[in-house]
Amino acid sequence: MRFVAEAGLLKRVLRQTRLTDPARRENSAEHSWHLAVMALALAEHAPAGTDVGRVIAMLLVHDLVEIDAGDLFVFAGRQEQERQEAAERAAADRIFALLPADQAATARGLWDEFEERRTREAAFARGLDRLQPMLANVQAGGGTWKIHGITADQVLGKVELIEDGSASLGRYARDLVAEAVRTGILGPARPV
Amino acid sequence: MRFVAEAGLLKRVLRQTRLTDPARRENSAEHSWHLAVMALALAEHAPAGTDVGRVIAMLLVHDLVEIDAGDLFVFAGRQEQERQEAAERAAADRIFALLPADQAATARGLWDEFEERRTREAAFARGLDRLQPMLANVQAGGGTWKIHGITADQVLGKVELIEDGSASLGRYARDLVAEAVRTGILGPARPV
Repeated sequence: MRFVAEAGLLKRVLRQTRLTDPARRENSAEHSWHLAVMALALAEHAPAGTDVGRVIAMLLVHDLVEIDAGDLFVFAGRQEQERQEAAERAAADRIFALLPADQAATARGLWDEFEERRTREAAFARGLDRLQPMLANVQAGGGTWKIHGITADQVLGKVELIEDGSASLGRYARDLVAEAVRTGILGPARPV
Repeated sequence: MRFVAEAGLLKRVLRQTRLTDPARRENSAEHSWHLAVMALALAEHAPAGTDVGRVIAMLLVHDLVEIDAGDLFVFAGRQEQERQEAAERAAADRIFALLPADQAATARGLWDEFEERRTREAAFARGLDRLQPMLANVQAGGGTWKIHGITADQVLGKVELIEDGSASLGRYARDLVAEAVRTGILGPARPV
């Protein structure tokens, strides 16, 4: 129950992603729910033999570390990313330890698996985690892409991770980027 | 993808439940995530043989109908409850139909199962759905109990549904109510 109460604090963690209406930032709890619903709805795009129940469990717990570490923008620099990784590991040590030992080990295992991205379940989960903010940006007519002046080459760099989890969702994401450039809600590659 | 985009609108639906800090109302998307995490963390309290994956799938989709129907306070009157049920059925017809036919049937089946509360999976899921706002009220030092002048007899009426899903969580909820009365964050039974 202490873990359940603690988990509720994820509703305070604001992400960069903007919700269309009302214009507010998405929090990590509702983001995690949306990803789990995506895993249910898009399960057929996972490689054959993927354990979708395991994908969902991973998605439900993957952002709990943000209760301590906060959310970092996907396009942050390398140094910031490294600081974030250390903060998230410390948060995982603290938060999963609120569970009884056997459950703590299971939950931590799911989080490590998601981070390491070695199983097809983790790769699919990570792909969904990348795809969801892209969908939100398209729905919002640009969203964080416009706010932060992100360009297509930067977004395409993140699409590789989606392809890694699901070939068909990767193709979908590439088409989404091309269409976003065509309609002008995402700038083309930056001049070198 | 139309269903995925539509599902995101659940983040707009505000519930009565207050979050401790910042003082805002919980939305149905983050509520659904919290319930799914509870199902993972409290799985051992489900009756033997309960399919927890099915419980989680049910919890993830159970409130999607509120995108159209909105959330109704658990202590609303009978007439309001009946209006709400009709609105939710109409919403289920519309929203699940955004999925391909086979998935629409599966998702609608999960929603019907949750509503009908005949399987042990549905009973456990419904119990968690009742327990979570109680935990939030205790955390908030009274929450909606104080705001709406709710008394222990009213809350205990809802505890029966928790007991129906899990004997141990039912006992936990009864103790929680007794403790809340003792500490004065919940009024005792109203005089007749």
